[in-house]
Amino acid sequence: MFAIRNSLKLVRDAALAVAAGLIFAVSALAQTDPLPSWNDTAPKAAIVSFVEKVTKEGSPDFVPESERIAVFDNDGTLWVEHPMYVQLAFALDRVKAEAPSHPEWKDTQPFKAVLESDMKALAAAGEKGLVELIMATHAGMTSDEFQKIVSEWIATARDPKFKKPYTELVYQPMLELLAYLRANGFKTFIVSGGGIEFVRPWAEKVYGIPPEQVVGSSIKTQFEMPDGTPTLFRLPQVDFIDDKAGKPVGINAHIGRRPIAAFGNSDGDLEMLQWTTMTGGTARFGMLIHHTDAEREYAYDRATEFGRLDKALDAAALNKWTVVDMKADWKQIH
Amino acid sequence: MFAIRNSLKLVRDAALAVAAGLIFAVSALAQTDPLPSWNDTAPKAAIVSFVEKVTKEGSPDFVPESERIAVFDNDGTLWVEHPMYVQLAFALDRVKAEAPSHPEWKDTQPFKAVLESDMKALAAAGEKGLVELIMATHAGMTSDEFQKIVSEWIATARDPKFKKPYTELVYQPMLELLAYLRANGFKTFIVSGGGIEFVRPWAEKVYGIPPEQVVGSSIKTQFEMPDGTPTLFRLPQVDFIDDKAGKPVGINAHIGRRPIAAFGNSDGDLEMLQWTTMTGGTARFGMLIHHTDAEREYAYDRATEFGRLDKALDAAALNKWTVVDMKADWKQIH
Repeated sequence: MFAIRNSLKLVRDAALAVAAGLIFAVSALAQTDPLPSWNDTAPKAAIVSFVEKVTKEGSPDFVPESERIAVFDNDGTLWVEHPMYVQLAFALDRVKAEAPSHPEWKDTQPFKAVLESDMKALAAAGEKGLVELIMATHAGMTSDEFQKIVSEWIATARDPKFKKPYTELVYQPMLELLAYLRANGFKTFIVSGGGIEFVRPWAEKVYGIPPEQVVGSSIKTQFEMPDGTPTLFRLPQVDFIDDKAGKPVGINAHIGRRPIAAFGNSDGDLEMLQWTTMTGGTARFGMLIHHTDAEREYAYDRATEFGRLDKALDAAALNKWTVVDMKADWKQIH
Repeated sequence: MFAIRNSLKLVRDAALAVAAGLIFAVSALAQTDPLPSWNDTAPKAAIVSFVEKVTKEGSPDFVPESERIAVFDNDGTLWVEHPMYVQLAFALDRVKAEAPSHPEWKDTQPFKAVLESDMKALAAAGEKGLVELIMATHAGMTSDEFQKIVSEWIATARDPKFKKPYTELVYQPMLELLAYLRANGFKTFIVSGGGIEFVRPWAEKVYGIPPEQVVGSSIKTQFEMPDGTPTLFRLPQVDFIDDKAGKPVGINAHIGRRPIAAFGNSDGDLEMLQWTTMTGGTARFGMLIHHTDAEREYAYDRATEFGRLDKALDAAALNKWTVVDMKADWKQIH
C-alpha cells in the first residue's frame, strides 16, 4: 500500500515537473516579439496595448473570443495597390488574353485602349469604361471557371515595379499583425472594395484567411443545371459594391456583428472605421496605413492623383485612430 | 551524471504514464455515443460512416478540416415549422404590437386580417400580402433595434401546440448532429429561406452557430450617421431570397466554397443538396428530414397543404441522399 502511494506520488511529482517545463517553454515563446517587422514606435505599442486589454479576463475592456472580430481592407492595407489595383491589372491582362475571340474589341473603347496600352484613353473611359472591362472579364463563365482563371493568373503575373508575384507584395508587418490577432483569439476578415471572388482563391494561402472570411464587391450569379451538372453562372450585373458606405453593409451582411478592430488605408475605409469604432464605451481599435515610403514602396495621400486618404485622415485625428507612417513605423515592408 | 540521467529517465517514464492515462480517458470519451437521440437505423449509420471516411487521414475520401463545410436549412430541419413558419408568427405578433401606432391597419389588408386573426383572409392576401407584412414589421428601424426586437420576442413567444418557447422546439437529434460534426472538424452553417437577421440573434446560443455562419434572406440596409452615430437602417426592399435556386447563390456569396454535407427537409432545399452533392468523385452527404410523426410532432410531405417535400424526395432516390423518417429514426424529437 505504501509502495503504491509512493509510486503515485512519484508519478505526480514527475508530471508536475513536466508541466513546469511546458509552462516555461510557453512563456519563453510568448516573450518572443510577435511583431518583429514593426519598429518600436507608437502604432506597435497601441496594437499591443489594445490586444492586451481586450484579452485580459476580468479587465473592464475584456471582450469574449467570439466577439473579437477584426476587419482588414485589402488593396493598400494588406498588399500593394500602386500603380493600379491588382485586380485592374488582372482585367487588362484578361482583355489581352481574350482579344482573339473578340475581334470587335480592337475598334471599341475601352477595349481598344487596353489592347493599345493607351492609358490616357483608358482613363478617359472613366468609371463606365471600367465597369465594361470588369463585366467582360469577370462574367460569362461559371464560378469554378473564374476561380481557376484567377488562380492561374495570380501564380504567374508580375508587378511592373518589383518584378515579383503580387502575392509577394503583401505587407510583412500586416501578416504578423494578422497572426498576432489570431493567436489572441481574434477572427480576421478581409473587407475589400475589390471583387470577393478575386480575393478568395489565394487569401487562405497568403493571409491565412479562409473564403468564408472574405467580404467584397460582387456580380450576380445564377444557379443552373446544364447537362444535369449544378453550376453557378456569373452574370454581367453588379450585385454589391463593398466600398465606402457599402463596407458596413457588407460587414453586417457577412459577419452579422460589429467588429472591434478595423484596418484601412483610404477614404474607402472611412465608414468601416466609423462603424467599428464609434460605438461608445467599449474598447475599439481603428488604424490607417499611410503610404509614406517612396523609396521602399510608394508615397501618396490626400494630395496625389491616387490620393484618397483625405477625409479618413481628418477622421483619424478626431476619433483617435492610429495612423501608421510606413516609412517610420515599418522595419520591413515585404 | 548517472544520477541526473536516472532522474531524467524517471521523469520521462512518469510523463509517458500520464500520457497513457490521458489517451485512455480520451478513448473512453470517444466511445460514448455522440448521437444518442438517433435510433440505430440506416440514417445514423450513414452519418457516422460519412464522417469517419472524410476524417480518416490517408483515406481516399479524406477531406482537410478547412473544407469540411456542412450546411443546414433551419425551418423544418433544425426546428419546428408547423403550423406556420416561426418568423411568420413573429410578423403577426409584431403587427399586433405596432397596431396602436398604425390606426389605418384596422381597415387595410393584409393587416386587418392579422388584427382580426382571420387566417382565411390572410391566406387570400397571398405572397404580395406576406411581403407587405414582412416589410412593415422587419424594416424601418436600425439593425441594432431589430436585433433587440427579435431577441425579446424569441425569449417570450410560445408555440401554440407545445406551449413552449420556439427555441425549445429545436430537434435534439439535429443538435447532437451539429455537435458531432463540429467535434470532427466541420464548420456548421445555417442556410435558411428565412431572414438572416431573424435567425442570428439566437442561433449561437441555441445551435452553437455564430452570426457569421448564418446565411439567409435579407432586406436592404443603408449606412447612415444621424447625430454622428453610425447606424445601419433597414429599408423596405428585398435584397436577396435565400430559397430554392437562391440557396447555392447564398452559399457561394457567404461561404465561397462548396459544402461537403447538406441537410434539408423540403423542395426549398433541393438546389442546395444538388449543389453540395452532385460534384462527381469526392465524398458528399445529402440528407432530408421527412416529417412522419403526427404523434410527437407533425406528419406532412408531398400530399399536404404544407407539402413541399416533393421534387426533393424524387431527387433523394436518384442521388442516394439519406432520408430520415422522423418517427422511425429519431428516439427523441425535442
